[in-house]
Amino acid sequence: MVPVMFLLLIQLIALLNGYGVEARIRQYKWEVKNEFKSPDCYRKMVITINGRTPGPTIRTQQNDTIIVEVTNSLFTENTAIHWHGIRQIGTPWFDGSEGITQCPILPGTTFKYQFVVDRPGTYVYHAHYGMQRDSGLYGSIIVGLPDGESEPFAYDYDRNIILNDWYHNSTTEQAVGLSKVPFQWIGEPQSLLIHGRGRFNCSSLSVPSSDPGLCNTTNPDCSPFRLIVVPGKTYRLRVSSLTSLSALSFQIEGHNLTVVEADGHYVEPFVVQNLFIYSGETYSVLVKADQDPTTNYWITSNIVSRPAPNTPPGQGVLVYYPNHPRRSPPTIPPAAPVWNDSRPRMAQSQAIKARRGYIHIPPAVSDRVIVFLNTQNEINGRRRWSVNNVSFTHPHTPYLIALKHNLTQAFDQNPPPDGYDFLNYDIYERHPNANTTSSNGIYRLNFNSTVDIILQNANTMNPKNSETHPWHLHGHDFWVLGYGEGKFDMFNDPNKYNLVNPIMKNTVPVHPFGWTALRFKADNPGAWSFHCHIESHFFMGMGVVFAEGIEKVGKLPSSIMGCGQTQGL
Amino acid sequence: MVPVMFLLLIQLIALLNGYGVEARIRQYKWEVKNEFKSPDCYRKMVITINGRTPGPTIRTQQNDTIIVEVTNSLFTENTAIHWHGIRQIGTPWFDGSEGITQCPILPGTTFKYQFVVDRPGTYVYHAHYGMQRDSGLYGSIIVGLPDGESEPFAYDYDRNIILNDWYHNSTTEQAVGLSKVPFQWIGEPQSLLIHGRGRFNCSSLSVPSSDPGLCNTTNPDCSPFRLIVVPGKTYRLRVSSLTSLSALSFQIEGHNLTVVEADGHYVEPFVVQNLFIYSGETYSVLVKADQDPTTNYWITSNIVSRPAPNTPPGQGVLVYYPNHPRRSPPTIPPAAPVWNDSRPRMAQSQAIKARRGYIHIPPAVSDRVIVFLNTQNEINGRRRWSVNNVSFTHPHTPYLIALKHNLTQAFDQNPPPDGYDFLNYDIYERHPNANTTSSNGIYRLNFNSTVDIILQNANTMNPKNSETHPWHLHGHDFWVLGYGEGKFDMFNDPNKYNLVNPIMKNTVPVHPFGWTALRFKADNPGAWSFHCHIESHFFMGMGVVFAEGIEKVGKLPSSIMGCGQTQGL
Repeated sequence: MVPVMFLLLIQLIALLNGYGVEARIRQYKWEVKNEFKSPDCYRKMVITINGRTPGPTIRTQQNDTIIVEVTNSLFTENTAIHWHGIRQIGTPWFDGSEGITQCPILPGTTFKYQFVVDRPGTYVYHAHYGMQRDSGLYGSIIVGLPDGESEPFAYDYDRNIILNDWYHNSTTEQAVGLSKVPFQWIGEPQSLLIHGRGRFNCSSLSVPSSDPGLCNTTNPDCSPFRLIVVPGKTYRLRVSSLTSLSALSFQIEGHNLTVVEADGHYVEPFVVQNLFIYSGETYSVLVKADQDPTTNYWITSNIVSRPAPNTPPGQGVLVYYPNHPRRSPPTIPPAAPVWNDSRPRMAQSQAIKARRGYIHIPPAVSDRVIVFLNTQNEINGRRRWSVNNVSFTHPHTPYLIALKHNLTQAFDQNPPPDGYDFLNYDIYERHPNANTTSSNGIYRLNFNSTVDIILQNANTMNPKNSETHPWHLHGHDFWVLGYGEGKFDMFNDPNKYNLVNPIMKNTVPVHPFGWTALRFKADNPGAWSFHCHIESHFFMGMGVVFAEGIEKVGKLPSSIMGCGQTQGL
Repeated sequence: MVPVMFLLLIQLIALLNGYGVEARIRQYKWEVKNEFKSPDCYRKMVITINGRTPGPTIRTQQNDTIIVEVTNSLFTENTAIHWHGIRQIGTPWFDGSEGITQCPILPGTTFKYQFVVDRPGTYVYHAHYGMQRDSGLYGSIIVGLPDGESEPFAYDYDRNIILNDWYHNSTTEQAVGLSKVPFQWIGEPQSLLIHGRGRFNCSSLSVPSSDPGLCNTTNPDCSPFRLIVVPGKTYRLRVSSLTSLSALSFQIEGHNLTVVEADGHYVEPFVVQNLFIYSGETYSVLVKADQDPTTNYWITSNIVSRPAPNTPPGQGVLVYYPNHPRRSPPTIPPAAPVWNDSRPRMAQSQAIKARRGYIHIPPAVSDRVIVFLNTQNEINGRRRWSVNNVSFTHPHTPYLIALKHNLTQAFDQNPPPDGYDFLNYDIYERHPNANTTSSNGIYRLNFNSTVDIILQNANTMNPKNSETHPWHLHGHDFWVLGYGEGKFDMFNDPNKYNLVNPIMKNTVPVHPFGWTALRFKADNPGAWSFHCHIESHFFMGMGVVFAEGIEKVGKLPSSIMGCGQTQGL
């Protein structure tokens, strides 16, 4: 099936921001199917969109309506696609999170997503069903300004890179291991991909292959990503991460990166040599091609926050035009940051503020504070992640439908707790967590209330170990009020909140043994997932669901139904 | 989850055959999930039922009601289970064929099958969704006579064996190859399983593995199947085949096999040294432990009809009690029949007649004759199998629901043809088959009419090649009126039909370059698949669907709905 894109110019003149704006409908037809690909030179079964992984980039403009008709051509597997960073205002049923906002899309079925991209910026899309994202079903959404408007920073060209990590075993194999008693950890990824291209060291295969196709460094699928630049020009580089597991450091040898956008919001510019980026985050950085143009430069991604000595770094090449694009840089790629030093990561998180002139002032106070203690647990011998000692399990009837149609049997009506035993819990110790439970209960938020979330990190089941968790909120942006080390102090830490120029984001890390404070308005009627964006962590229960303003949700489309208790609706 | 079986004695006294009969309800709870297993010593991801492949054997009695609650604990994959040989009289919606009689069972969902086993005999069950059966989701159904009744042959013990072939790659990987342009054939299986146990020659791995668990001949999963017999006793051995691809020859070294049952019908006994058995067939053979009891004997399965020099034979051991069960027979296993000599196979097919005293006389004439030319084709560069130049494609709305609710958009309302160009088509030649099409059209049969089916084999796309196809009919048994070589002669061959004592079956082979003639009464209201039981052949379009008496079908359970046009029902 050829990718078909209809650009329908709708004669719709809306009055937005005082300007006459033309909003378009952009229509795509996507076929999702299984194919063999070798993104890191090692052949494995992946999931493609119209034959590609990463899938096609959606390039659109603010206020456009996006229509994506997804045909599931997998054989026995369902799917669902989440539009990460798009708030789905008025269309909560098209958020694409299976079990939360829709039933899965069955093989042979075409599902039509339709939503408005109401803010400019850099976003992503990806499968939101089981751990299917890890099979390669992901891509970028780039929302430009309406015609006639301009960004508050100057650049000559706009380029896009998605970063990822990559496993050689299938997501089903991974899921079997993660669900096993005893627990079987998936390990570190085999490689890092830069825009869908990586390089696994075929000669490092413990099992040397006589099949020349299995691992072949001359496969065009894994020819390195190359960014060609014209000397002297400035590039807006949109960098997104959709790693399964890894926190990354991204860098371009010898070039400064000026951070100007995060998750669709303008950042008060600051300069870094390496950008720390967590799964689910998007950034724009400005890069000036101001170095010696006679040579090429390394583009690298490295794993931080976890030891991964056997995972080769992601490597691409910044090519100064007219150098030969296949010419490797003469240098050794820049060294990775020390993996277990979280201070520079914490510092970079704290450096991200809203850009002057584009500050959204948060409400001064919140109506409710929920503290989420992040712990690793064991429930009936099974390794799980929990929030306040409750490990999330997916229901079989999507919450949005259950709530709207008052199907009270569809999920546990008892909400999980708003906090944990702050006084007595030692976040630096391992805990038996004997009282940990599984539940699909949800948090019901008062519509239009202001909610504070404190993400509190803690020790895992391993001694002296705490991990980085990037938490992603569906349906909203939140203000990032602060980050800290150790246990959040409810009496003193709120006084340090940044209420002046906090950045708004949809994904934010909580650093090892640290805390992160967020604030958001529960102003988007629907049911919304908030979860760790590490695929295995969410699979193992690291998430919650918020519901708000359900009475304001319009008539649900029948296309999202057909599963669980909605089979007969 | 522990397998739970409730035996509920229902105080239901029915008058059947003049006897007072107690019918029971037998209830099972099955959990279907992914696990790693090493059935032939090579570890791969399989699908288990309650942790086992083959799944649990259903042992029941005629007129019992079987209730199986299937919980799909796969991660992103649906399922459906077909009760092969059970006619589902009055419950056509529980036949378990996805796309024909039900929507797939979604992950996390429990589907309740409920049906009556109305005839004694040997049957099987297996996944009927994509090529999922090949992942190991299959097992046996053994229906005994009601209390107080006895078989027309004597035996001391009743034993059960399922034969299978086994691939090391996943069904998804196979499906990708089969759907590819150009076609990528899956090849011959890596091993043959006898009751779920085979032996792959680990040292034959072209890729020697440093992972000791990957291929390990000491893994208990692949300890050979052993049948322990007491000298002098007679065993009823129920032998079923659920191969993906292979036609098999089954044999027990030095022992005669007396065929007494085929697909649940009593056979006029005849003796063979080796039983030819095709995917979807079941037989009972009587074996007397009448050989030298101081030694053990080989039980073997061998591939016939296709060259498979690299597939080791299936090997089990017949153990004479009290010999040590692990003692190997001192002999070399018996040689396989010549793979490409179809004459003994044809002869054995023709030898199978209904047992005296248990003959169902077929109607003397039929109301309709449909000839099915079996051909291999290419459609838009894609390799397919066709019937009368129409390659079957699954619809997304199950036929049974579409027909009952008159959803005429759900499938092609044009029926496929009742025959082919008998006069001019040379079955011994390759054909371009330029006019081959894909369709999901069906054959509508007049209720209670008598239908003759002639399966006509022909040359594949390879020169001088014709394959064996075991065709399986859902919802009915048919009379096997005859087999022949070459092109069916409509004027003379019907005169040779066996109308005196034809066996009734649900699965029957059509031999290379031959034909097979069947007759059945279209007396079971519903929509029923008739297809080649080779998993890849059905996947590639080798099947048709019959519909009859839809107006007599009762209210459909909502549990079968939720997909295609039934999403909103």
